Amino acid sequence: MNAAVRQIASITSATARRAVEAAVAAAEAAGQTSAIAVVDATGQLIAYTRMDGAPVQAAQIAQDKAYTAAGFGMPTGQWHDLMAADAPLGRGAGTAVDRLVPFGGGLPIRVDDRTIGGIGVSGGHWSDDDKVAQAGAAVVN
Amino acid sequence: MNAAVRQIASITSATARRAVEAAVAAAEAAGQTSAIAVVDATGQLIAYTRMDGAPVQAAQIAQDKAYTAAGFGMPTGQWHDLMAADAPLGRGAGTAVDRLVPFGGGLPIRVDDRTIGGIGVSGGHWSDDDKVAQAGAAVVN
Amino acid sequence: MNAAVRQIASITSATARRAVEAAVAAAEAAGQTSAIAVVDATGQLIAYTRMDGAPVQAAQIAQDKAYTAAGFGMPTGQWHDLMAADAPLGRGAGTAVDRLVPFGGGLPIRVDDRTIGGIGVSGGHWSDDDKVAQAGAAVVN
Amino acid sequence: MNAAVRQIASITSATARRAVEAAVAAAEAAGQTSAIAVVDATGQLIAYTRMDGAPVQAAQIAQDKAYTAAGFGMPTGQWHDLMAADAPLGRGAGTAVDRLVPFGGGLPIRVDDRTIGGIGVSGGHWSDDDKVAQAGAAVVN
Repeated sequence: MNAAVRQIASITSATARRAVEAAVAAAEAAGQTSAIAVVDATGQLIAYTRMDGAPVQAAQIAQDKAYTAAGFGMPTGQWHDLMAADAPLGRGAGTAVDRLVPFGGGLPIRVDDRTIGGIGVSGGHWSDDDKVAQAGAAVVN
Repeated sequence: MNAAVRQIASITSATARRAVEAAVAAAEAAGQTSAIAVVDATGQLIAYTRMDGAPVQAAQIAQDKAYTAAGFGMPTGQWHDLMAADAPLGRGAGTAVDRLVPFGGGLPIRVDDRTIGGIGVSGGHWSDDDKVAQAGAAVVN
Repeated sequence: MNAAVRQIASITSATARRAVEAAVAAAEAAGQTSAIAVVDATGQLIAYTRMDGAPVQAAQIAQDKAYTAAGFGMPTGQWHDLMAADAPLGRGAGTAVDRLVPFGGGLPIRVDDRTIGGIGVSGGHWSDDDKVAQAGAAVVN
Repeated sequence: MNAAVRQIASITSATARRAVEAAVAAAEAAGQTSAIAVVDATGQLIAYTRMDGAPVQAAQIAQDKAYTAAGFGMPTGQWHDLMAADAPLGRGAGTAVDRLVPFGGGLPIRVDDRTIGGIGVSGGHWSDDDKVAQAGAAVVN
């Protein structure tokens, strides 16, 4: 291996699209209308859909949840406790970190303990979005 | 109906302009100077005016209130209680949701229980803005 | 029908995802690596993927091609002749019209002579992108 | 008059709304579907509508035409000849000047040889947009 090169382990497009379809199926089964985004290990959008009837705002929120989860390698739902326990972070993270979504609906996508991407879901309450995201991430996780 | 197509029920331009005029009349009667925006069901601006003497900032706030109300199908004034009752949402929604205005002055515009658009008013206190928005929405509601 | 309401005929999410999959299949068959975007009649993103190996830039270009095609109801490839034949438009359209892509790879998606959305493809030469877009649009057209 | 104060002569909100309505009537008579924007002498949006069926892009183009016309006190349609006659301007104005639209459809609104605002119209060919803008500006001019 050339020392100048590193390998970025990242989700494939085909897998990302399967994750979106699995999330759509879970949302339909739960009566949710969601926007669903999958980003790769570098935070870039790889697969996306907005279901009929999802709020316009869900487009941005779903993409930002996926970005937040993939970048930090942590479910978005863990940010609330982190921020509550750390006053400077609690005061500052929301405005200082671009695209941070500190509530549920975003999950890292992992293989062999490595984050290869993230999935973000928006459209319902964050606790429901989280279940839809889990169904999408389960294609890999 | 072709299965590839769905119909998005949305406010007409003529009705949106009538809603703006009704809101202007209500604002004048109340001694308010407001910016007033009406967006369609997809969040796009359909009719707008800024009254003489309204703050420059009211332009953006009114448009964002209309967008918030139309997208979520809920008065903007309900966000305060939602956020107070749900800590992660309370911490995160203000920064994580683009253009969210979580105080009064934005109302969905509804026909037959369907949201066909939203109206947003800014320039006074949110409780006064809300009354002006109600006068605009009453053209349809 | 309430006179306050108009119906916007727009592509469904399920059909938009099928169009993306059809375009991916055509790109694979042609040895192309593409980003593929489908927007609805109002210009908003409904389905998207970026294939493995497509340039980073293809993400934005594909989305803007879809937006250009859906908004104006015209293939993006027709802009070159329009601009060549009309000096003010030729000088100004590229910078004055946000997100305008005036070369091939974007197609309106039409049902019964009505534009219900648009598809945009980027990653190869525009003439190749156009063929991939045609395969996607053929799901409906 | 206090020497610290200058008066900015600017179109009223009521007049701006009348200009929009006059432009809508002219567009309807001509079978055009337009977005129509009126800005004040300081370039800020005072009245706006998008007619049913106008392209999504017309929203931005109409507002930028009004801004271009009001700021420079000149019809947008004159920019093409200016730029053709002056090579540095011709090369640079399109990218160097934010929101410049160098083709027809934008007119200054004038009283007593003073520019008090601008009107911008988009949705058809710029030559048609120009006629709709003239009908709007005629409320004052």
